[in-house]
Amino acid sequence: GDSLSIADYLLERLVQLNVSTMFGLPGDFNLGFLDYVEDHPKIEWAGNCNELNASYAADGYARVKEGSIGVLLTTFGVGELSATNGVAGAFSEHVPVLHLVGVPSTTQQKTKPMLHHTLGDGRFDAYHVAAQQFAISHGSLQDKATAPAEIDRILTDCVVLGRPAYLMLPTDLVHEQVPRKRLLTPLNVEPPQNDPEIEAYVLDEISKLVEEANHDAVIILDACTIRHGVRKEAKDFIERSKLPVYAAPMGKSAISETYERYGGIYVGTISRPEVREKVENAKLIISIGGVRSDFNTGNFTYQIPINRTIELHSDHTKVQYATYQGIGMKHLLPKLTDRLSAFEATASQLSVPKFITPIPQEDDEVISQNWLWPRVGQFFQKGDVVVAETGTSSFGTIDIPLPEDAVFVSQILWGSIGWTVGATLGAAVAARDIGKPRTILFVGDGSLQLTVQELSVMQRLGVTPIIFVLNNSGYTIERYLHGEKRKYNDITNWNWTSLLSTFGGVEGKTCQSYTAKTKTELNNLLDDPEFAKASKIQLVELIMPRHDAPRALKVQAELSGKTNKYVAIGVEASA
Amino acid sequence: GDSLSIADYLLERLVQLNVSTMFGLPGDFNLGFLDYVEDHPKIEWAGNCNELNASYAADGYARVKEGSIGVLLTTFGVGELSATNGVAGAFSEHVPVLHLVGVPSTTQQKTKPMLHHTLGDGRFDAYHVAAQQFAISHGSLQDKATAPAEIDRILTDCVVLGRPAYLMLPTDLVHEQVPRKRLLTPLNVEPPQNDPEIEAYVLDEISKLVEEANHDAVIILDACTIRHGVRKEAKDFIERSKLPVYAAPMGKSAISETYERYGGIYVGTISRPEVREKVENAKLIISIGGVRSDFNTGNFTYQIPINRTIELHSDHTKVQYATYQGIGMKHLLPKLTDRLSAFEATASQLSVPKFITPIPQEDDEVISQNWLWPRVGQFFQKGDVVVAETGTSSFGTIDIPLPEDAVFVSQILWGSIGWTVGATLGAAVAARDIGKPRTILFVGDGSLQLTVQELSVMQRLGVTPIIFVLNNSGYTIERYLHGEKRKYNDITNWNWTSLLSTFGGVEGKTCQSYTAKTKTELNNLLDDPEFAKASKIQLVELIMPRHDAPRALKVQAELSGKTNKYVAIGVEASA
Ligand SMILES: Cc1ncc(C[n+]2csc(CCOP(=O)(O)OP(=O)(O)O)c2C)c(N)n1
Ligand SMILES: Cc1ncc(C[n+]2csc(CCOP(=O)(O)OP(=O)(O)O)c2C)c(N)n1
Ligand SMILES: [Mg+2]
Ligand SMILES: [Mg+2]
Repeated sequence: GDSLSIADYLLERLVQLNVSTMFGLPGDFNLGFLDYVEDHPKIEWAGNCNELNASYAADGYARVKEGSIGVLLTTFGVGELSATNGVAGAFSEHVPVLHLVGVPSTTQQKTKPMLHHTLGDGRFDAYHVAAQQFAISHGSLQDKATAPAEIDRILTDCVVLGRPAYLMLPTDLVHEQVPRKRLLTPLNVEPPQNDPEIEAYVLDEISKLVEEANHDAVIILDACTIRHGVRKEAKDFIERSKLPVYAAPMGKSAISETYERYGGIYVGTISRPEVREKVENAKLIISIGGVRSDFNTGNFTYQIPINRTIELHSDHTKVQYATYQGIGMKHLLPKLTDRLSAFEATASQLSVPKFITPIPQEDDEVISQNWLWPRVGQFFQKGDVVVAETGTSSFGTIDIPLPEDAVFVSQILWGSIGWTVGATLGAAVAARDIGKPRTILFVGDGSLQLTVQELSVMQRLGVTPIIFVLNNSGYTIERYLHGEKRKYNDITNWNWTSLLSTFGGVEGKTCQSYTAKTKTELNNLLDDPEFAKASKIQLVELIMPRHDAPRALKVQAELSGKTNKYVAIGVEASA
Repeated sequence: GDSLSIADYLLERLVQLNVSTMFGLPGDFNLGFLDYVEDHPKIEWAGNCNELNASYAADGYARVKEGSIGVLLTTFGVGELSATNGVAGAFSEHVPVLHLVGVPSTTQQKTKPMLHHTLGDGRFDAYHVAAQQFAISHGSLQDKATAPAEIDRILTDCVVLGRPAYLMLPTDLVHEQVPRKRLLTPLNVEPPQNDPEIEAYVLDEISKLVEEANHDAVIILDACTIRHGVRKEAKDFIERSKLPVYAAPMGKSAISETYERYGGIYVGTISRPEVREKVENAKLIISIGGVRSDFNTGNFTYQIPINRTIELHSDHTKVQYATYQGIGMKHLLPKLTDRLSAFEATASQLSVPKFITPIPQEDDEVISQNWLWPRVGQFFQKGDVVVAETGTSSFGTIDIPLPEDAVFVSQILWGSIGWTVGATLGAAVAARDIGKPRTILFVGDGSLQLTVQELSVMQRLGVTPIIFVLNNSGYTIERYLHGEKRKYNDITNWNWTSLLSTFGGVEGKTCQSYTAKTKTELNNLLDDPEFAKASKIQLVELIMPRHDAPRALKVQAELSGKTNKYVAIGVEASA
C-alpha cells in the first residue's frame, strides 16, 4: 500500500543501510515493535542474553560490516541502562551503533504514572538525560507527522558522524501509519563537501611541506581510517604516493599488513626499535584518522614534534600548528593522492622495515606469551576476523602481522573487558554476511567471566568462531600494572571446556572444546585442518603462566611504573 | 597513629556502618584503593564477575542487612557505567547503595589526557553527569582537607535518605593522610526530628479520623517500612493498636506473615477476594511506606478514595488531601502508637482473614504454578531469606505466607531481570552475617541467563543458597502480556544442572544440582532433610509448562489486556 507503520518505516531504513540483524532483548515496552521485527523478512532478531552483551554485539557488528551500522533494541530503564557502558564504548571508539529503546506511550510520558521500570519519582526523562552523554544524536518519536523525518535525522547522524545515536520508540507510535513515499529517497550519508577555497589552501600547504621534507614522509593509519570509511581513499593514497606506511594499534588492518611498503605498528616508545627509528626520523608524518590515546601511543610517547605533523580527520585537518575546521579527509584524500603521487619516485626509495615476527626458539613446552602470538600468527588466513580482548591478548596480537583482507577488532581506547565476547558474536554475524568465513577470538580468563553467556547466542545463531581462552589464573595485565600478588587480581578457575555444552551445545557434534597445556598440543591443534576449517564453534583453553606478558605490555607496564607507582597508567600524560 | 589514609578513613566509616563486604571489580583506577580494602581486617572483597552483578549484589546485601548499606566499587567509565542499571534500580526501590568509583588523579582531571576508559573527547565529567540521575547524593574527593567531610556527607545521605550515593575516588587522594580524630564521632544517621507543632497537629488529625471511622481502620505496610528502617516502630504500632494489617507486595515480610492479625497481601483487584473486601470496605486506610507502582497496586486498581487514606512516608505525611512535608514516620509512628493504642479494644474486634494457601489437589504429575508455590511454602523455615525474580516467580511467591523472621526480597517496581542472581549473592552474604542460615532463590530460565556467572562468586565466597530455576522454555511472563507464540519470547535451553560445576564447583562435593520433572520428584527433594539443610550450594531445575502462570499474573495480564493490546501494562494508569 501507500503507507506503512512507523516500525516498518524504520526497519526499511535499516535494510537500506544494509542491516541484517538486530541485537537486544524483549521487554514490555518494545514487544509491540518486536512483532514487526520478527515479521520482517530481511531482519533477524538476535535475542541476546543481556543488554550489555547485546550492545557489544551491535558494536562488533558495525565494526566488521563497514558502511552499515549496529542496531541495539532494549526496553525502558532496565534494558537501556544495562547497555550504557557498551554504548559509551562505541561512542569513545567511533562506532555507529543505533540504540532503539521501547518506551512508554506518548500519553504515559505526559501523565507519568508510576510504571515498573520507572524511578518512582515521576522523572521520565532521566534515562534520556543519561543517554545523551553517550550519543552523537538523540530523540524520541513525538507523533506520526514528524516521526519519519526524526528517524531519518537520527540515522543519518549515526552513519555520518560515526557514533552512537539514541532513539526512543513510544509503544503507541510504532503502529501508526506513515506514507511510504519518503523511503524512495535514500538517506544521504555522504560526509559534507569541503569548502573548496580552504581545501585548495590546505592541499597547497601539505604539498609544500612534503616538498620541503624532500618527500621524506611517512603515513600513520589510525582508528578513524576504518571507522570513518576512508579505507579505500587511504589505500589509493598510499599505493599511489608510495610513501612508507605504519599503523597505530587502533589502525591495525586499516591497510593490508602484507602490503610491501607497510612496516607494522607504531606506538611510541613501545614500537619495535626499527619502526620507531623510521617513524621518528622521518621529516614529516601524515597521520590519517588518528586517536592519540594512552594505549594507542605507548603512553603518550610519540616523539614527533607538531611542526612535523599533518593530521587528517573526519571533520578537520591539522597542518603543523594550524587547524582547518570542516576540512574532512573523505573528500580531501583523493585530491591529496593526485597531488602527492607526483612524488612517487622519491617516496618509493624510502626503505620500510619488514613486519615479521618469527616464532622464537624456546626449549620448553610452556605456552609462553612470546611464543604464542607468532605461532597463532601462522595460523591466520586471508580474510580472518581477529578479535583481541583488552589484556595480554590486545598487546600480544598487535605485534603479529595479519594476512590480507583480515580485520582486526579490539577496543584499545575504551578497554572494557568482556567486550570481545559480545563483539565476537556481532563480528561473526557480520563476517558471515560479507563472506568472511572465520572469526577468531583471543580472550583472557578474567574478561570472559564478564560476558560468558553470549556463547549461548553464538550457538543459537549458528556462527562458528574459534575462541582461544588464555587461562593464566586471573588478571595478568593488572598484575603487571599494580598488585602482582594481590588476591583482588585472582579469579575463580572455571571448567572452561564445559562452557559450550553448558550453554546449549552438544560437545563433539555442534561444538568442540580443547585444552592445550603444551606447545606440542597447541601445534597439533593448529595444524589440524579440521580445526582450521572452523565449521563448528570451538573453544580452546590455553594453559599459560600466571605472570607472563607480551613484550609490548611489559614495556607499557614499565612506562607506567616510572610515572607513578599507584596511578597505573598515563599519570604524566597531557592532552 | 593520629592519622590514617583517606582510603582507611572511608573503610572505617563503612565498618561503623556495619559493612562486612564490598562488591565490585578491580580496574586501573581503583587498584590503589583496593590495596587498602584487601589489607583491612574487617572488610572482605567479593571480587564479582561483572559490575552489573556486583551492583545487584550490593543491593541485595543492603536489603537483608537492614541499617547497613551495600557498597560497590568500580573503575572509571567502563566499570561504573556497567553498573548503571543496578544503581538506578536501587534508587527506584529505595536501597542504600554506595557506589565508589576509582577515577583519574586530581591532576589528570584538570589536564584531561586521552586516557583509556575516556570518551576521547576530553569530557571527564560525563559519567558523573549520568550518575547524578540515579544518586541521591554525589561528589568527588577534591583534596585531603575536605575529603573526610565529603565522605561523611555522602555516607550520611546514603543512609538517611535510603538511596544510592556516588563518590569518586581520585587515584592520588586515597593515599593522603587525614586526622583520625573525626572518626570518634559516629555519623548521625537519625532522620531529622519532626517540627513539634506540625507533628502534634498531624497526630490530632489522624486520631480524629480514626475516631470518626469508629476505629474501623486497616494498616497497609509497604516497601518503605522496610527500606526506611521503621520495621520496629511499625510493629509496635500494629501490635498495640491491634488494627488489622495487610502488606503490599513490596511490603511483604515487613511484619511477620504469621502474625495473627495479618491478613496477607493487598494488591488492588489482584488481591485474594477476602482481602480485597476487607481492605476496600474499611473506613480508613493507614498506609505505611507506600509505593504506588503498577505491579504493587494491581495495575493501579486500589479502590480506596483519598478521603479515606492516611499515608506515612519517610519524609512526609498525607492525611486525606493534605500533605505535611517534613513530617517523617520514624518519629511520628511511636507517638501515633501512643495515641491509637487507646482504640485497641474496638480495633481488636475487627476480623482478619487467615492468610493460608493450601496445596491444591491436582491429579497429574506436572509441576504447575498453582501447585508449586504452596508446596514450596511448606518448605520454608523460620528466618529464610526468600528471593523472587521478576516473572512468574515474583507473582507466585506473593501469594505464599512466609514463616516468622523470613525476609522477602524482590524488585517489584524496578523489575530488572537477572537482578536476583546478584542480589542473592549479596543477600546470602548479609544473611550469613546476621545469622540467617538459608537463602532461597526462585529465578526464571530467562532471567538467569542475564547474570548467571555470579553463581561462581557464590561458590568462591562459600555461601550456600538454594536456587530453584523455573525451566518453562522462555519468557513466560512476557508471553502472558504479549506475543504468546512469538520467537522473541523463546530462549536457548541450557544444561542448567551443569552450571555450578562449570562455574567452579565440584558436583556432589561442593555443590549439588537436581532436576525435578514431576511433583513426586520435587516432593521427595523438599522432604529430604539433607537438602533442606542447605549446607552446600544447590540448584534445582524445575521442568514446568511453557504457558502457565500463577493466579496473580493471570489476573494482571487480563487487566493489561483490557487496557491495551500492545502497551503491555499500565497504559491507563494515572500518577
Ligand atoms: C568492564 C571492566 N571492568 C574492569 C576493568 C579493569 N581491567 C582491565 S584489564 C583487567 C584484567 C583482564 O584479565 P584477563 O582477561 O584475564 O586478561 P590477561 O590475564 O590476559 O591480562 C581488568 C580487571 C575493565 N577494563 N573493564
Ligand atoms: C534487564 C531487563 N531486560 C528485559 C526485561 C523484560 N522482561 C521482563 S520479564 C522477562 C522475562 C522473564 O522470563 P523468565 O525469567 O523465564 O520468567 P518466567 O518464565 O518465570 O516468567 C523479560 C524479558 C527486564 N524486565 N529487565
Ligand atoms: Mg587472565
Ligand atoms: Mg521462563
